[in-house]
Amino acid sequence: MRQIGLLYNVHKQEACSVRTDICRQLERTGIRVVDVPIDHDTAIVETHPELKSCELVIVLGGDGTLLGVARQLSPFHVPMFGVNIGHLGFLTESEPSQLEIALERIVAGEYNLETRLMLEAFVYRDLREIARFTALNDVGVGKGSFARMVTLDVHVDDVYVDTYTGDGMIVATPTGSTAYSLSCGGPIVSPHLQVMVLTPVCPHTLFSRPCVIDASSWVRLSVHARHGDVELAVDGQEGMRLLAGDEVLVRKAPFQATLVRLPDREFFGVLRSKLHGDPSSA
Amino acid sequence: MRQIGLLYNVHKQEACSVRTDICRQLERTGIRVVDVPIDHDTAIVETHPELKSCELVIVLGGDGTLLGVARQLSPFHVPMFGVNIGHLGFLTESEPSQLEIALERIVAGEYNLETRLMLEAFVYRDLREIARFTALNDVGVGKGSFARMVTLDVHVDDVYVDTYTGDGMIVATPTGSTAYSLSCGGPIVSPHLQVMVLTPVCPHTLFSRPCVIDASSWVRLSVHARHGDVELAVDGQEGMRLLAGDEVLVRKAPFQATLVRLPDREFFGVLRSKLHGDPSSA
Amino acid sequence: MRQIGLLYNVHKQEACSVRTDICRQLERTGIRVVDVPIDHDTAIVETHPELKSCELVIVLGGDGTLLGVARQLSPFHVPMFGVNIGHLGFLTESEPSQLEIALERIVAGEYNLETRLMLEAFVYRDLREIARFTALNDVGVGKGSFARMVTLDVHVDDVYVDTYTGDGMIVATPTGSTAYSLSCGGPIVSPHLQVMVLTPVCPHTLFSRPCVIDASSWVRLSVHARHGDVELAVDGQEGMRLLAGDEVLVRKAPFQATLVRLPDREFFGVLRSKLHGDPSSA
Amino acid sequence: MRQIGLLYNVHKQEACSVRTDICRQLERTGIRVVDVPIDHDTAIVETHPELKSCELVIVLGGDGTLLGVARQLSPFHVPMFGVNIGHLGFLTESEPSQLEIALERIVAGEYNLETRLMLEAFVYRDLREIARFTALNDVGVGKGSFARMVTLDVHVDDVYVDTYTGDGMIVATPTGSTAYSLSCGGPIVSPHLQVMVLTPVCPHTLFSRPCVIDASSWVRLSVHARHGDVELAVDGQEGMRLLAGDEVLVRKAPFQATLVRLPDREFFGVLRSKLHGDPSSA
Repeated sequence: MRQIGLLYNVHKQEACSVRTDICRQLERTGIRVVDVPIDHDTAIVETHPELKSCELVIVLGGDGTLLGVARQLSPFHVPMFGVNIGHLGFLTESEPSQLEIALERIVAGEYNLETRLMLEAFVYRDLREIARFTALNDVGVGKGSFARMVTLDVHVDDVYVDTYTGDGMIVATPTGSTAYSLSCGGPIVSPHLQVMVLTPVCPHTLFSRPCVIDASSWVRLSVHARHGDVELAVDGQEGMRLLAGDEVLVRKAPFQATLVRLPDREFFGVLRSKLHGDPSSA
Repeated sequence: MRQIGLLYNVHKQEACSVRTDICRQLERTGIRVVDVPIDHDTAIVETHPELKSCELVIVLGGDGTLLGVARQLSPFHVPMFGVNIGHLGFLTESEPSQLEIALERIVAGEYNLETRLMLEAFVYRDLREIARFTALNDVGVGKGSFARMVTLDVHVDDVYVDTYTGDGMIVATPTGSTAYSLSCGGPIVSPHLQVMVLTPVCPHTLFSRPCVIDASSWVRLSVHARHGDVELAVDGQEGMRLLAGDEVLVRKAPFQATLVRLPDREFFGVLRSKLHGDPSSA
Repeated sequence: MRQIGLLYNVHKQEACSVRTDICRQLERTGIRVVDVPIDHDTAIVETHPELKSCELVIVLGGDGTLLGVARQLSPFHVPMFGVNIGHLGFLTESEPSQLEIALERIVAGEYNLETRLMLEAFVYRDLREIARFTALNDVGVGKGSFARMVTLDVHVDDVYVDTYTGDGMIVATPTGSTAYSLSCGGPIVSPHLQVMVLTPVCPHTLFSRPCVIDASSWVRLSVHARHGDVELAVDGQEGMRLLAGDEVLVRKAPFQATLVRLPDREFFGVLRSKLHGDPSSA
Repeated sequence: MRQIGLLYNVHKQEACSVRTDICRQLERTGIRVVDVPIDHDTAIVETHPELKSCELVIVLGGDGTLLGVARQLSPFHVPMFGVNIGHLGFLTESEPSQLEIALERIVAGEYNLETRLMLEAFVYRDLREIARFTALNDVGVGKGSFARMVTLDVHVDDVYVDTYTGDGMIVATPTGSTAYSLSCGGPIVSPHLQVMVLTPVCPHTLFSRPCVIDASSWVRLSVHARHGDVELAVDGQEGMRLLAGDEVLVRKAPFQATLVRLPDREFFGVLRSKLHGDPSSA
């Protein structure tokens, strides 16, 4: 291993101090470190193109920080190792206290790579694509404010599914199934399945239920005319305002996120910890 | 009966044509009609103070139209008779086709009055009351956009209940229990009970569940600092932006809404129709 | 205070040892102890009629033990003080470790009495009452085995509510709202409200939702013919087999359960502990 | 096509009369008909071994009738064509009124074959297999009566998932996702996905949520000692009593069910009809 990226969330003090420790440890091994402070909207690939050729990047922050990095680096297939500053995460892998040993194992090649399905979303207005997004957790279309509702027609592979009125609709990956979709009543999905989850958010029609569909499907969400303020949200972190008549197409991205995993970690164990022991951060 | 208000939603064409029929029918009986076109934000009491002394008002529109009228006229104890333009409603009482006979019965005094609990909400900022609202359905505090969440501390009668993170929290009346609260998983509440329902909206903590409490309680919702854009919504129709640290106090209003009911209508029958047969408008 | 009942669950070893300590403590104060070992189906009032004239009874066991005692002693208005052997309970009040001090306070009169609504259920077959039950938590009518379903007509005060097909239907008190009803999606109800909760169990009709109704109502559950094996369950502890055509009438009992409460206990605090910290016993 | 099975539910009068019409129609085409009346527990393959070599079987009944046939004929890969006597079904394909034309199309080869994942369940007691079942919808382990609960340890591929206390646990196929699992809060799963759904039934632990896992996994449900009466149910139609310590292993069957589909039928259309328009049979 010759070059490692080191990304740290500048809003988390502990991330900054952990970063100093890691730099020192990696210097001793002779590995070159690409050191990148990140903020909510840092365009890291544009400002640090050398990240594209890193053998892996270490991300110091929470699941939220890693989501943002994944959207930017996954097209370049760079493996990410998340270090948990704050709550236990589904995506982050290690605690700062165990980091020194974890890094030794990684430098020695003792790790697994795990890939995770990602989504692409295309926004069409008047039959023209006006925006494109990448998501690791979910793509949501919802009302722009607390009070009103949104009406959406949903198609899967050009087959009409139903018309939903409510707070919105989420298309989640298996990774995103334990995030916002879960709060909205969606199922937990094993992380390696090639499926997407369509989860209605507070639907007015009480029989509207979460659906699990093939990840090779196209999902089309069409915004009905009457309910003003509609928004597209990607991983709950970025998005845009939509207009009546806009269509959002969601499909599996042509690339996946690659996570570095230490051998002794396992999905259901993390799930139990999150649901039982640390519910406030679920 | 000497004076009746006639309020009609100007955005619904059928309301306008029904209004003409009613005017004619009432003219024949010699009852004076106070004729008021209403829009989303018409201040009807200010522009038509004679409504305060009407023996009843007829409201041509849907449940949404009646909610707006109720917030304005209920402090003056004016009974409201809702006529259903569009979907079957929980608050509206009659269909246009049955209206002529219904009006004859009402003029003859063959009706019941039904009262419904209403709420008052007070917004405090820096210990000062900065706004006050009245609600027939619900008072909600929620995130201002699809993507982010809000954290709220909830107290009932100064006893700490819990801290909720998610899309928001609703305080609903029994009347509101079949509206937005139901979409969020709240129970259906018999319309005459003196209770309120606290319904969390898409809570991140999966064990956060709807609570039914005494209508004589005070509910305090306190906005935590970290999650930007927070909104207060009243009956899903009006509201305001809230800031970190703001507190919303909700309690039973000192007045109730008074609905005119024909003798043969009954709550569970309407509920069945709405849930089974006309689910899209539930 | 001259005479106290001391009931202990003979299946819980700790209950037996705590009982010895209490006996000794009470002997020193000169209070007479009516000592009653209890099993699942001990008819304690028949075997120990002097319990009826106790000023209070101490119940050593869990919430389940106290439920059984409450069904038997509540008609005689005997206050119950539950001591928690095992998990934190909603009904039990004290831990064994704090018991000595708690008893001193009780003997000194430093306690509150809290009353809780109870239910009566009457089973009618061929228009004749064939059985009668008392419940503190809930009365349920459900299928007798995992595989089949039951169809029930539900009436409230002789008004038809709906026909439910599924695993069954629960009528819960506010006390029972945090027990089985909660697992089935029912709301949490403040313990002092005069209401009942109708909670469908795994309904096939997805729009069937929990209803909160006035405690002064009569609920009638009528068993449809076609689905064989149906059971009535009272507090999940006793019951009987029902036949097609049987009717179960449920109403508020003419007596209430009386719980002894120490001054510093509060419903939402217990609720938080149960839901967050000790979820496996919720 | 030379030989067709004709199975009809003898408890449904319309099935018997439709059967006469079909016999006549098929006789005219010269196809040989294997005519089999079926009851709940007819062992059709043992009594009519010639069914194994039929090119297809027509099943006159409801989804329930077809489930029973599928469990018996699927190991022999016999395609099944379900004719709907009663409610619209997910598995049945045609209404009696359209049957004559449907049969003409089938005889002419104008149909599609659709395969559906099935499950096998093995019951182990004292480390020995004591029973084996096949399911098209679901395998459930649950409490044997309304009142009590069951505690189960769940493992997936020998990884411990969690311990569930409640009414039980279901392992459903995509086909079964719209049956009992849906009533218990499970997601709708696209019928062709190679997944299973683990759905807890009325779990006491409120954060226990449905999980979607790979169909190539093994699921092991282990019955805890303390809660008496436990049952295994297969498609809600057959099963057995379980004892404390018993283990149920569930995996994908080595064969699939084969359904005959006419070209113009589509999953989401049926789903909409069932959920919106015919909710009582969902």
